[in-house]
Amino acid sequence: MARISRRWPVLRLDREGERRKRVDQLAGEEPLEIQLDGSSFSVTMRTPGADVELVAGFLVSEGVIWRPDHVHQMEYSGVTPQGQRDYNVLNVHLAAGVPTPDLTRHVYTTSSCGVCGTASIDAVRKTSAYPVEADHHTFHPDQIAALPERLRERQEVFQRTGGTHAAAIFVPDASGALQLRCVREDVGRHNAVDKVVGWALRTGELPLTGAVLQVSGRASFELVQKAAMAGIPVLSAVSAPSALAVETAKELGLTVIGFNRDERLNVYTGAHRLQPAPSPDRVAEIH
Amino acid sequence: MARISRRWPVLRLDREGERRKRVDQLAGEEPLEIQLDGSSFSVTMRTPGADVELVAGFLVSEGVIWRPDHVHQMEYSGVTPQGQRDYNVLNVHLAAGVPTPDLTRHVYTTSSCGVCGTASIDAVRKTSAYPVEADHHTFHPDQIAALPERLRERQEVFQRTGGTHAAAIFVPDASGALQLRCVREDVGRHNAVDKVVGWALRTGELPLTGAVLQVSGRASFELVQKAAMAGIPVLSAVSAPSALAVETAKELGLTVIGFNRDERLNVYTGAHRLQPAPSPDRVAEIH
Repeated sequence: MARISRRWPVLRLDREGERRKRVDQLAGEEPLEIQLDGSSFSVTMRTPGADVELVAGFLVSEGVIWRPDHVHQMEYSGVTPQGQRDYNVLNVHLAAGVPTPDLTRHVYTTSSCGVCGTASIDAVRKTSAYPVEADHHTFHPDQIAALPERLRERQEVFQRTGGTHAAAIFVPDASGALQLRCVREDVGRHNAVDKVVGWALRTGELPLTGAVLQVSGRASFELVQKAAMAGIPVLSAVSAPSALAVETAKELGLTVIGFNRDERLNVYTGAHRLQPAPSPDRVAEIH
Repeated sequence: MARISRRWPVLRLDREGERRKRVDQLAGEEPLEIQLDGSSFSVTMRTPGADVELVAGFLVSEGVIWRPDHVHQMEYSGVTPQGQRDYNVLNVHLAAGVPTPDLTRHVYTTSSCGVCGTASIDAVRKTSAYPVEADHHTFHPDQIAALPERLRERQEVFQRTGGTHAAAIFVPDASGALQLRCVREDVGRHNAVDKVVGWALRTGELPLTGAVLQVSGRASFELVQKAAMAGIPVLSAVSAPSALAVETAKELGLTVIGFNRDERLNVYTGAHRLQPAPSPDRVAEIH
């Protein structure tokens, strides 16, 4: 049975030698086998709960699909040894005309894996159907600085378990205000991002023009790649980006923001999407 | 050129609208292609700097090798388009008699990937040459509670970049005191663990009987698996373990400690390896 979290008895020890028994909530982590038309394509270690979005987003990240009508159907197709439905196997039927990727290059992923599925190092850089370089939306730094707290308020599994990463999609409305559209959590940071991208695919919101992808942790190369495949121009992380994340984002025309915390942030590349800092008068108006 | 970290110009914005330019250090993240006798086996996104240890540990985790003499030789075998040596391709020659794993099940890993290489969900659980269930070493809770700080003091790349995970091996000496034997860092938590396991293989210290593996972040299933393959009886994490990490550790007889911070810790399974809490007098003696 696939679970988002589970209770577990814990022995709590402190420096004073006190021993207490209590019950903790642990983040769920289970393997999900992704099949394409019945053939195994990938195994990922994920937190159960948004599997259809996860698989849709993963296929967008892998460049297999980029429009909702590229998927004909998804179904849990496994059977447990006890003869019950296995919620850890999800089979995707691609729509007629959508090429099935080469299944000889098996893809195996774990709780933080995403580049997976590349047959060579060169192939790590995929081509997006939705280039972001020409996305000219701009943001006030205060808008971006407010996002980590807005995400944190919605990290329900993290609040219970302390064991999950989170990703959120913020999209500007007509007035330019950033609206929180989707939050997802997972033991793997790449899965959390795949889930929000899959949500966007299924709701017809790809490409995510003018959007900001806010993540709870660090920004690796793979997260930049996933943002690029979904047409997201801005990736904002609470912690550090890697060198390759920043280099790749620069190449693709994405904006990368890191250490977005405590009302400060670092812009590593794509600073043209952040408006000039306002004058003190303007700040007073905004607050 | 593979680098542990690199300098990058950053625009720092704060809530008061101040904009400052500065130079940040970013953690290196580059793909490493692992070859077995010239055939591609895996691509992992890693922080350069301890590649031979990383590959050795990865092969231990995958169950391909478990003794130093299982490896005949490793060499950087790639050539860049400019005709120079490519430090992102490492070729492993296994010793005569060591079976080459099935290369049709390609293994692709990224900065936090480790289960990779399993041809089915069942195969995720590998068999260790070094079972830990019968490892009867015990530890005083204060010894374990001291480890995160001892690790933190040695996280040199993290101190520069804020962008790396870390893993350390602590081994008891004749008096029972835990000695720090090896610290390694990486953008991927699984790579940091592979590096310390690879160090242990190469120095002839496998199995790591009586050892504690201390990690800087969370404890996923894959980290439990890696500890088990190296014969490490105790995994201690600064943050939360996942449900599957704890369930698997219980099955294998490992001890899992989580939220080891601020002089408190949670024991999720294998509490028999922690001695009873001392009396207040005993604590006074120890301090």
